[in-house]
Amino acid sequence: MANDAALNDLADLLGQAFTRSKSDLDLHGRSESHFPPTPPDAVAYPSTTAEVAEIMRICARHGCPVTAWGTGTSLEGQSQAVRGGVVVDFSRMNRVLEVNQADMDVRIQPGVTREALNEDLRATGLFFPVDPGANASLGGMAATRASGTTAVRYGTMRDNVLGLEVVLADGRVIRTGTRARKSSAGYDLTGLFVGSEGTLGLITELTLRLHGQPEAVSAAVCAFDSIGQAVRAVIDTIQIGVPMARIEIVDPATVRAVNAYAGMSLPELPHLLVEFHGSAAGVEEQARTFGEIVQDHGGLGFDWASDPADRKALWTMRHNAFYAILALRPGCRSIVTDVCVPISRLAEAIEETIADLDAHQVTGPILGHVGDGNFHAILMFDPADPAEESRAMEAAGRMVDRALAMGGTSTGEHGIGLGKRGYMAREHGDGWQVMGALKQSLDPANLLNPGKIVPDEI
Amino acid sequence: MANDAALNDLADLLGQAFTRSKSDLDLHGRSESHFPPTPPDAVAYPSTTAEVAEIMRICARHGCPVTAWGTGTSLEGQSQAVRGGVVVDFSRMNRVLEVNQADMDVRIQPGVTREALNEDLRATGLFFPVDPGANASLGGMAATRASGTTAVRYGTMRDNVLGLEVVLADGRVIRTGTRARKSSAGYDLTGLFVGSEGTLGLITELTLRLHGQPEAVSAAVCAFDSIGQAVRAVIDTIQIGVPMARIEIVDPATVRAVNAYAGMSLPELPHLLVEFHGSAAGVEEQARTFGEIVQDHGGLGFDWASDPADRKALWTMRHNAFYAILALRPGCRSIVTDVCVPISRLAEAIEETIADLDAHQVTGPILGHVGDGNFHAILMFDPADPAEESRAMEAAGRMVDRALAMGGTSTGEHGIGLGKRGYMAREHGDGWQVMGALKQSLDPANLLNPGKIVPDEI
Repeated sequence: MANDAALNDLADLLGQAFTRSKSDLDLHGRSESHFPPTPPDAVAYPSTTAEVAEIMRICARHGCPVTAWGTGTSLEGQSQAVRGGVVVDFSRMNRVLEVNQADMDVRIQPGVTREALNEDLRATGLFFPVDPGANASLGGMAATRASGTTAVRYGTMRDNVLGLEVVLADGRVIRTGTRARKSSAGYDLTGLFVGSEGTLGLITELTLRLHGQPEAVSAAVCAFDSIGQAVRAVIDTIQIGVPMARIEIVDPATVRAVNAYAGMSLPELPHLLVEFHGSAAGVEEQARTFGEIVQDHGGLGFDWASDPADRKALWTMRHNAFYAILALRPGCRSIVTDVCVPISRLAEAIEETIADLDAHQVTGPILGHVGDGNFHAILMFDPADPAEESRAMEAAGRMVDRALAMGGTSTGEHGIGLGKRGYMAREHGDGWQVMGALKQSLDPANLLNPGKIVPDEI
Repeated sequence: MANDAALNDLADLLGQAFTRSKSDLDLHGRSESHFPPTPPDAVAYPSTTAEVAEIMRICARHGCPVTAWGTGTSLEGQSQAVRGGVVVDFSRMNRVLEVNQADMDVRIQPGVTREALNEDLRATGLFFPVDPGANASLGGMAATRASGTTAVRYGTMRDNVLGLEVVLADGRVIRTGTRARKSSAGYDLTGLFVGSEGTLGLITELTLRLHGQPEAVSAAVCAFDSIGQAVRAVIDTIQIGVPMARIEIVDPATVRAVNAYAGMSLPELPHLLVEFHGSAAGVEEQARTFGEIVQDHGGLGFDWASDPADRKALWTMRHNAFYAILALRPGCRSIVTDVCVPISRLAEAIEETIADLDAHQVTGPILGHVGDGNFHAILMFDPADPAEESRAMEAAGRMVDRALAMGGTSTGEHGIGLGKRGYMAREHGDGWQVMGALKQSLDPANLLNPGKIVPDEI
């Protein structure tokens, strides 16, 4: 909890950029997920790193919790200030500072959103490929180690953050990484802060790796009789070295939802959605090779989308699938699972999940990033029906157990936040205690996003 | 220093797998570099993780330093037990434990060498691409965050280690990462241990990402009038998205050395050595595109090596360049620098280095991984001439200052060890203190490879 002394000092520092208005607190207490709202005691809107450092020093002096806020689009309540204190909203630190075209990198403030960055880069021939769906801030995407549909080709935030500027719990400012493409100069601090969900420091600047806009793009959708056939086609495609830019799977329940939502009439079967990037000849070769592999695995014919409008329609359908699923039962809420398994176990993991959900009467259409072995079940429940909610929660837990038994992880891209902390001991064993020791070394007073990621004792 | 109680307990535990013979101590006191030998008090040869954990518990009880040893091929004295104690030699933990072909990953013990692993994988159609030149152990390569000629395409050890088993300073055993392709489940412990040079824990198992053996390979060598032209050709090639598998540069002094060593007659000009991997059509397209770009930048004609024997000769020449350079002055020793800069600054960095070496009468042929912006000058000195040695040391320091001013790093791939610790404060500022805090949280008694990476106070 914040104390009056901290809030007074912050108000003196920030003036109009500090607020305790109810509407602002409510706005920063909500999340995209099913967790109850947690309005903070105050919201700060810094404009500079120096201000963030001073906010941190004030809060350290008074023992006031500090929680970072990007766009509030994280899916596990990462930005919720569960122990009160100050939310630091980075929306005013939203400048693109420096584009280095020859080096294909960019230096930005953390409040720049993914779409704003790509808009800014449009004329350069470069783009930032990580795409979690939401128009999230890049600081938030780094903090949650986000990824999405393009990770199979371009990697996750782990792979695309070259360096950071970070305000530590005591207000010191450090720079991690460099603009060099690689370094072995000591511990990988950049990698440590990426995915730490604001518990180790506040990200005030990012240097990101960019990629060349592909000369040619081609996309397609293809139905299969079974999930196993679809996944085996993808495994073969990866093995042969075809660099798919996206490769997504939707299950029959998701297709049903999309058909109803968008007035489409796709067959109610598992589908793969694929996209290729490269030179014109390269994309053609990739598509041909993929087509042959799909045929070997019983694929039921392709629908190619080579022109931009058709491609946009295809990926809009994919990105709207979540809303299409929610529209199946107006008023329902959902738990969005995020397990990730070795791809050899993916078909089994999805099929066992479908059988489990059927057996326990849980509605949970499935869609996923098949190239990474990562899939989401949207487990729906009526908020007025506690029994249904528990059935959904229990099914989510069994999905995690199944993923861990297969050598996978509880979360491929959504992070821990409030929703997955209960699985940390299971997934990491004593490694979870190691995370706690690291947290304690950098934030001994537990001021940075307390109640997240690490064990409670610290 | 080890005490008798620790050594007695270790001898009881390990029997024949524990030695204090002078030859063994001498062997484990040396390094590939110019640092004076530091024979440890004893050498342990564990066969299992349980033995490593017990060694660590004994040493923790008695306050005895522990330094990990792979093949002793690190270049900055990383394996030298500068404060005595026990060297843990992992050469008996050299089994490939599990190859997962569909998932393209492998689980191994840390003593498996790069060449042994690829020999083992030969029939699978898969390979492990990271290639630092030496036939290093994979545990050691992870510990130093090694890379080499193929990093431009396949990444460094940071990108190719999926998970680790680690014995902590108190003997606890943890597993980091999973076999899933991505995860956002808390702090990236795998990334923290990779590159930590044995200062945070002992790596007892690794899960590595594998890649498909390319269907077609093609390589070439090409001369340019200037380093600037050569680098600009590479920048354009990267921007256009041609996925070069290797792209190396050698300066005229290196060409002179290679000509003398191998009886060749390459023109004494900067050269690029390049290799493409892909499908037959893909490699052909890459080579054609590269050829056009090279011509635009004044490249002086290609010598293609499409058949394996010619390719092998080309890369043997590259790997032997170091020995060719040393042969210029028999009996000399060398400081091998390893700066890495943004590629837009690479030509400038190399040209300024050549001018600086000339001005200070230091002989230092240059070769590098141009796609990463990483290059090595082999600064030679006569061990009997202290003035020449200081000139070489000072030139190395100026190279680091220049790299840092350009947004680069003191070491792209060789790591810190003994040779680069003096640059850590300059490169990381307060970030170096953060590394110290992390070290203290996991190894409060400073038993694991003491004297390396972090500040001395800890």
